[in-house]
Amino acid sequence: MTDFLRSGGRAADQLRPVRITRGFTIHAEGSVLIEFGQTRVLCTASVEEKVPPHKKGSGEGWVTAEYGMLPRATHTRGNREAAKGKQSGRTQEIQRLIGRSMRAVFDLAALGERTLYLDCDVLQADGGTRTAAITGAFVAAHDAVTKLIATGALAASPIRSHVAAISVGIVQGTPLLDLEYVEDSACDTDMNVVMTGAGHFVEVQGTAEGAAFSRDEMDQLLALADKGIAELVQLQKQALQIA
Amino acid sequence: MTDFLRSGGRAADQLRPVRITRGFTIHAEGSVLIEFGQTRVLCTASVEEKVPPHKKGSGEGWVTAEYGMLPRATHTRGNREAAKGKQSGRTQEIQRLIGRSMRAVFDLAALGERTLYLDCDVLQADGGTRTAAITGAFVAAHDAVTKLIATGALAASPIRSHVAAISVGIVQGTPLLDLEYVEDSACDTDMNVVMTGAGHFVEVQGTAEGAAFSRDEMDQLLALADKGIAELVQLQKQALQIA
Amino acid sequence: MTDFLRSGGRAADQLRPVRITRGFTIHAEGSVLIEFGQTRVLCTASVEEKVPPHKKGSGEGWVTAEYGMLPRATHTRGNREAAKGKQSGRTQEIQRLIGRSMRAVFDLAALGERTLYLDCDVLQADGGTRTAAITGAFVAAHDAVTKLIATGALAASPIRSHVAAISVGIVQGTPLLDLEYVEDSACDTDMNVVMTGAGHFVEVQGTAEGAAFSRDEMDQLLALADKGIAELVQLQKQALQIA
Amino acid sequence: MTDFLRSGGRAADQLRPVRITRGFTIHAEGSVLIEFGQTRVLCTASVEEKVPPHKKGSGEGWVTAEYGMLPRATHTRGNREAAKGKQSGRTQEIQRLIGRSMRAVFDLAALGERTLYLDCDVLQADGGTRTAAITGAFVAAHDAVTKLIATGALAASPIRSHVAAISVGIVQGTPLLDLEYVEDSACDTDMNVVMTGAGHFVEVQGTAEGAAFSRDEMDQLLALADKGIAELVQLQKQALQIA
Amino acid sequence: MTDFLRSGGRAADQLRPVRITRGFTIHAEGSVLIEFGQTRVLCTASVEEKVPPHKKGSGEGWVTAEYGMLPRATHTRGNREAAKGKQSGRTQEIQRLIGRSMRAVFDLAALGERTLYLDCDVLQADGGTRTAAITGAFVAAHDAVTKLIATGALAASPIRSHVAAISVGIVQGTPLLDLEYVEDSACDTDMNVVMTGAGHFVEVQGTAEGAAFSRDEMDQLLALADKGIAELVQLQKQALQIA
Amino acid sequence: MTDFLRSGGRAADQLRPVRITRGFTIHAEGSVLIEFGQTRVLCTASVEEKVPPHKKGSGEGWVTAEYGMLPRATHTRGNREAAKGKQSGRTQEIQRLIGRSMRAVFDLAALGERTLYLDCDVLQADGGTRTAAITGAFVAAHDAVTKLIATGALAASPIRSHVAAISVGIVQGTPLLDLEYVEDSACDTDMNVVMTGAGHFVEVQGTAEGAAFSRDEMDQLLALADKGIAELVQLQKQALQIA
Repeated sequence: MTDFLRSGGRAADQLRPVRITRGFTIHAEGSVLIEFGQTRVLCTASVEEKVPPHKKGSGEGWVTAEYGMLPRATHTRGNREAAKGKQSGRTQEIQRLIGRSMRAVFDLAALGERTLYLDCDVLQADGGTRTAAITGAFVAAHDAVTKLIATGALAASPIRSHVAAISVGIVQGTPLLDLEYVEDSACDTDMNVVMTGAGHFVEVQGTAEGAAFSRDEMDQLLALADKGIAELVQLQKQALQIA
Repeated sequence: MTDFLRSGGRAADQLRPVRITRGFTIHAEGSVLIEFGQTRVLCTASVEEKVPPHKKGSGEGWVTAEYGMLPRATHTRGNREAAKGKQSGRTQEIQRLIGRSMRAVFDLAALGERTLYLDCDVLQADGGTRTAAITGAFVAAHDAVTKLIATGALAASPIRSHVAAISVGIVQGTPLLDLEYVEDSACDTDMNVVMTGAGHFVEVQGTAEGAAFSRDEMDQLLALADKGIAELVQLQKQALQIA
Repeated sequence: MTDFLRSGGRAADQLRPVRITRGFTIHAEGSVLIEFGQTRVLCTASVEEKVPPHKKGSGEGWVTAEYGMLPRATHTRGNREAAKGKQSGRTQEIQRLIGRSMRAVFDLAALGERTLYLDCDVLQADGGTRTAAITGAFVAAHDAVTKLIATGALAASPIRSHVAAISVGIVQGTPLLDLEYVEDSACDTDMNVVMTGAGHFVEVQGTAEGAAFSRDEMDQLLALADKGIAELVQLQKQALQIA
Repeated sequence: MTDFLRSGGRAADQLRPVRITRGFTIHAEGSVLIEFGQTRVLCTASVEEKVPPHKKGSGEGWVTAEYGMLPRATHTRGNREAAKGKQSGRTQEIQRLIGRSMRAVFDLAALGERTLYLDCDVLQADGGTRTAAITGAFVAAHDAVTKLIATGALAASPIRSHVAAISVGIVQGTPLLDLEYVEDSACDTDMNVVMTGAGHFVEVQGTAEGAAFSRDEMDQLLALADKGIAELVQLQKQALQIA
Repeated sequence: MTDFLRSGGRAADQLRPVRITRGFTIHAEGSVLIEFGQTRVLCTASVEEKVPPHKKGSGEGWVTAEYGMLPRATHTRGNREAAKGKQSGRTQEIQRLIGRSMRAVFDLAALGERTLYLDCDVLQADGGTRTAAITGAFVAAHDAVTKLIATGALAASPIRSHVAAISVGIVQGTPLLDLEYVEDSACDTDMNVVMTGAGHFVEVQGTAEGAAFSRDEMDQLLALADKGIAELVQLQKQALQIA
Repeated sequence: MTDFLRSGGRAADQLRPVRITRGFTIHAEGSVLIEFGQTRVLCTASVEEKVPPHKKGSGEGWVTAEYGMLPRATHTRGNREAAKGKQSGRTQEIQRLIGRSMRAVFDLAALGERTLYLDCDVLQADGGTRTAAITGAFVAAHDAVTKLIATGALAASPIRSHVAAISVGIVQGTPLLDLEYVEDSACDTDMNVVMTGAGHFVEVQGTAEGAAFSRDEMDQLLALADKGIAELVQLQKQALQIA
């Protein structure tokens, strides 16, 4: 690691301060405000006692996600997608990623014929909104499942493992963990990694924004991600008091 | 007034606890979280140095609003409007109301050729989201104007008066101030009133959900609204420390 | 009242000439052309023997409205909403108002599980299109109900009262009844009032276009509306020959 | 011709009663209500002093049309296209046909860089709405041009010829002129013909709804159309008092 | 006929080289690449064992078509309709035409309650894409039917006749068969003719792009089309080896 | 490698037969049909002498891509996105990936203020459509650039490197190169890798469809991809005759 200067003086392999607030809103079965530094995402988990057509009669449930960003979550105001009448490609890409990540740790048969919606809405953005969303959505999903067990709707948890996500990237030649917006804008390579509590990969999405990256750089990034996600999983456990 | 039983034991003519948090998010020129009891709306004010076509070259500015509700702000999850690809009639009605209310206290010529966007996003709903939005948007707009003056973009404030809003209604024969969701669902008559700091009307929207209402009932409702809005304006002043 | 000069020399508290032509088109169960001076709205009532999902199996019927304006109903041609692919916020606001107004005088249980559609299409606009639409739609709805009774589909009328609407406003300090387009454009305060045949309020929607208005002004406007609507109800009765 | 029985006892080669009412509404530069029996179409002509992108700077004008049908113009209520958010293929086909037909008799260079919009809205439908629309739109366009000449905007008329349209079809083996709805529904072959005042073809659109038709049948239909259109052109001239 | 010079030296009444390649793609029940000179259209026929709502329970099947053009099928790139979010009027007009043409030769009762989709996608355009599409779609439909008979799903063919289509037009006074793009752009009159194998008309769509055309010209064009379609039907039979 | 049985008897680390046909259609500046076994994608490159708003005046050009699939490119017919009125999330994800991959090897400043559109349309699908699209689009882009140089529009090539893509995955414990549809459906882990001619990564997108995958499995997949892409780059060079 080199001596790249980061905000708050954090090290290249250091996460931003992470805060997980459960029960942030009152109506949802799970409601979590997750903060990665200045990035703040509200993740709610909602249970609906029916499934989409492709699961009807299968005995299996479904887990899906939607993602949104408040118009002024960012430095300059973005258009409201509801007003424009469509979700951007970026929004769809992110919500599909969150959904796949959640399903990777869910036993859909054990969930039964119900749907779990994870709504991830960015209140404030400073880089890493999709990784914060995945990490927070897991906690919200966990709370919703706990409620289903408490009411007797489920006998056992359909959750097979933790899942969390982090971004890594190379900025001015230095591999960094958990990019802030200014780092993300400046980086050559940007990678989002989703892993289980057991340290296995669920999703790896790396993009060369500038120069293409080498196998060696990739290995360094994956190692950084592995370290960060292990820490996030610990923080999830503390928040859920299951450590 | 009769002895109708309200949550928290509040009187028929009593507001819910109101909380106004300025600077709730960091990017917007004005950012206010307003709470009317369990109703929580994030109001941001964004300044853009251009105007819509109908104001181009007029020397005047524009003030407009957009409104949204997070899918799980409510008891049961609602569809995400961005995913459905259109805003409901209700959403459009509300955001048009907020926009008109703000423009009613703005001197558009004094604002200059720039646009002030008020984004009102409901994080949690328990009745009165549109009146909370108007009351909070005013504070956010005030903060944005203060910033424009601080940077020298404006010499004087284009704001001519405070503006705030409250709902009133008749539930089981009793006129009530500031309806919660359960009261709103049960009410025969529902009225949203928007008034200036000087106690004049900006908007009055009354609807008989059940039986039509009499002139006498209307007079009682208007008096209640007058009382509530005077209190809200005081709370705005305290929040802005201009009391 | 002051001596404000109105077209055709009408008094401040005088309606424009109102004409109600029943049976204007042949297919609909009710078809009424209503004219408020130069404003002409075609209101048709259509009966469909099914209800929307939220009423299915409830034993109750539904009454709803749609509103449209022909592109050249106005001074300058407006875009065709069907070609643009969406209804404006104004259109939706108006059709929701018409629907609520009609439902206010309908006993939905007595209507049975069927839907009454009121289509209000503006052929020519000169102010007051929504109030003319409500006043005419009631007559069309009445004709449709009469037909349902005649065919034996209904034993008794589900209509509990007349409903009519009028606009009032303050132009250059003078409260005026039934605003024409030029008056509407010039007015400071604009209020649309919907009342039943019994003189009770169904909807009150007042907006300060310029300066906010006082309680005293509001009282004057409500009195004017009360007078106008009483006259409109009489005209409805004459048209229906039930006076 | 055989002895097919038509409503009102009209002959196989006889038009329905045609009524052309100019100045039906007040705002448009041309406004014509045209009636082919029970079919009633309101055709307005609007002049706009600009042209679409593909004509900008060309020195030429543009003539275009839009078509719509009120929801209850027909026996059973149809969906409102503005509410559905799109125009049907049928609607687009018809408005493109009207536009081409009008342009066929317009000298676009002589019109100058302005656009003439023809809005054809069906108030009541009983077959032949597109042919009535074309025939009426011509009269509305003529009135708009007369106004442009009167104001000095145009020195001479850009209209080179009359244009009118009629439907013809074969019902139970009998070729019929100007089909009503019941005839149209029953017919094997349906043809819409648009011709100029000089008796030349602008559009011929024939469709075999049932059995394919022979060259001989086509010749009979074209002869019928020729006769009908000559009569319509006479009626246009009478309406315009230029006979 | 005059001595108009055509590409490849072909005569005024001569088709471009036509090539019909069956089995162009592997998944569809029928898949045909049809080439009219440089115009190339891929026509696939897909069988679905259900029918649209208006045919449900009727015992009859349905035949329908969709048409598309790849963005760079043309000289300059066109917008992708899927990206724009709607099909143009031209696209809808063409696919409705293809659908009607196919249904004209199908016995829908004999088809049984299933739907045959004809997808016609233009890979390369040089005039005549809709006529090539119809001519090729017939062959694809024929192959799909043969498969249904082979699998025992159908006992006999529901196809009553061949159907093919060709364009004809008048360019610089000369009637031409099968217009290429440059001819189509230059032509005064453009006619698309769809006929059955028995030489009867299914569709005739003639449009005067420039001067209106006379009855005599129409007769010449219809004769040309008749000749061309007879040749196309022969080519279909050769391709299907049923000559 | 284990002894997994693949179609055509190919080895686990063997590509399907790849065919690259340049000049497949005539209008586009570059037009390539690329085949990976039964997967066939038509890639066209179109040059437009203007740039999107965010590049206007920057001196830089833009490279972007659109992706589509013909309705019957697949085993069962899919809905036409143009008819549905929107592109799926999958389509948007893929076309964004293709666009980023192309931009990774383009010097946008050297391209000048023009846009290069890559349209990738799947004629037939059997797995790997996005990787075939990227590999083929590069060849089409290269041809378009060659034409720009030939006409003098460009002095030197803005292409800095080859780019190609391949899928890899783990099926029943065996890492496989270049997955066909049946393999893709059965696989636990699916990864799409985009690399430059120099063997560096442009994009890595790995997804655990079933069980999460280990670091060791990832290393095996990346090695397979590296081998496959080196071969594809050779095939591109042969096709372009620049080997």
